Amino acid sequence: MGGDFAPFEAIKGAKNFLNSASSDVHIVLIGDEDKIKSIVEQEGIDKTQYTIFHAPETIGMHEHPTKALKEKPKSTINVGFQLLQRKKIHAFISAGNTGAMMVGMHYTIKTIEGIQRPTIFSVLPRMNTSTPGLLMDVGINADCKPENLLQFGILGSLFSKSILQNSHPPKVALLNIGEEEGKGNKLAQAAYPLLKENDKINFIGNIEGRDIFTDKADVIVCDGFTGNIVLKLSESFYDITQKLSIKDDYIDLFNFEDYGGTPVLGASEPVIVGHGISKANAFSNMIESAETIIRSRLLDTIRDNFSK
Amino acid sequence: MGGDFAPFEAIKGAKNFLNSASSDVHIVLIGDEDKIKSIVEQEGIDKTQYTIFHAPETIGMHEHPTKALKEKPKSTINVGFQLLQRKKIHAFISAGNTGAMMVGMHYTIKTIEGIQRPTIFSVLPRMNTSTPGLLMDVGINADCKPENLLQFGILGSLFSKSILQNSHPPKVALLNIGEEEGKGNKLAQAAYPLLKENDKINFIGNIEGRDIFTDKADVIVCDGFTGNIVLKLSESFYDITQKLSIKDDYIDLFNFEDYGGTPVLGASEPVIVGHGISKANAFSNMIESAETIIRSRLLDTIRDNFSK
Repeated sequence: MGGDFAPFEAIKGAKNFLNSASSDVHIVLIGDEDKIKSIVEQEGIDKTQYTIFHAPETIGMHEHPTKALKEKPKSTINVGFQLLQRKKIHAFISAGNTGAMMVGMHYTIKTIEGIQRPTIFSVLPRMNTSTPGLLMDVGINADCKPENLLQFGILGSLFSKSILQNSHPPKVALLNIGEEEGKGNKLAQAAYPLLKENDKINFIGNIEGRDIFTDKADVIVCDGFTGNIVLKLSESFYDITQKLSIKDDYIDLFNFEDYGGTPVLGASEPVIVGHGISKANAFSNMIESAETIIRSRLLDTIRDNFSK
Repeated sequence: MGGDFAPFEAIKGAKNFLNSASSDVHIVLIGDEDKIKSIVEQEGIDKTQYTIFHAPETIGMHEHPTKALKEKPKSTINVGFQLLQRKKIHAFISAGNTGAMMVGMHYTIKTIEGIQRPTIFSVLPRMNTSTPGLLMDVGINADCKPENLLQFGILGSLFSKSILQNSHPPKVALLNIGEEEGKGNKLAQAAYPLLKENDKINFIGNIEGRDIFTDKADVIVCDGFTGNIVLKLSESFYDITQKLSIKDDYIDLFNFEDYGGTPVLGASEPVIVGHGISKANAFSNMIESAETIIRSRLLDTIRDNFSK
């Protein structure tokens, strides 16, 4: 029931996924049963491929996360995390209130032991390689400590290796305002040596704003304030090219509507949060991401890397 | 002698400016006298329109600012600030080492009383208005206090009114990761009420990354770390369109080579710092900016606004 086009686009995305996938994924649709039922019947989705789980309440996009979760125990977000915690579902996907998703996660499944702050990323299309880059955090950690940036680098590196199948060790860089060590704000100055000294990542140093969309780095770490500004600015450049009727295959890769959300890396079970504007294509891609994460056993790999 | 194409492009820019201007601006060319002389003669610049001031030393783009200024008393940056301090020139322009320019400024002419931190901005081309917007700070203040952001807002507002001739009070916004008050990192959360309560600016609230290149705000304030990332990312988007051979009048406005540097707002005399890659067109535009700032008496207006 989350996002601007709920529940129609979510259900349509599920249908598209089921039609194209060769796998045996079963979709649990959580939300208003009557509304969902009428759409799935109208769309003619095979009844063996989905289950509807009734959740009569919805948390709005602008509601206060903690307050809304307490006042609406039967909201889709509360119900989803309960199902995830009780292992009734293997992954939970939502394009609803991101803040409520994060608080809901902390209330139930929590983070993997050793991870201070879970993180979300943005996928970066790059001109000279078909493998996308990752930028993280992009908004759930507005203020960060140096150790958080190090953990983002490790998480991003593991995701890049397991899911994007970068064969070489992924190149991890620190987003900064100069290339030399010692440049930047206090956070970047303090994070640099931590990244440099950690043997779990292939740290290549600082990277500047101009190199975000190149193949210089595969994983770029920054605080969530900076990352969110970069993400939304990049989205706006795509919008500008569309208003100007510019057609180009590479520019089309900037259509963030296609990406379909980001896993919450560090959560103890697969959780994917989507943009409020997500349409069917984005939902279908989010389901595909969830399946890939489950089958790759990414979370076990993360657990191994963060256990002492 | 500063910048990647010194001194040729600087002198060519001076020539272009003199050829196009109807004014009686006199250019003082500071640097290696022999080198400058051979270029001005070759370019055939009218001898009554310039003076050469010999400065035999040059500070490299990657030298440590404080150290270089001390070891090279006859560098163009040292000499330029001495001339400015002794009122022998009305404005000082350089595409050299920005850090050395800032330190040189603090050693000599200093900031206007009441201004905690001088700032530099980036000009923002916007789709639906011919007046450019301003984003500040873009790199000389990597870590900021909330009061700094307020002062950037006042300085930007005065520049927008005096130089860009925005008739309405310029709309000042805080770059943030959400629209509502209370959103953002600690800096943005603390800066918001200061901006809101100040009666020298027309504060319109938060603005997100996606709205930087719209006419929602005329002056956008942020810390120099975020602003520098935004600036360089925007430059890279222009570069991407050029690599893709995209031709468009609006996109052409993103050719930052044309902008020709930024005034150091808050300095007690007109100082303009340019990009190292500045070519003739950028230098010509920097000289024009300096003339406009001098004739508009912008610095007197700033002094009035910051005096108690």
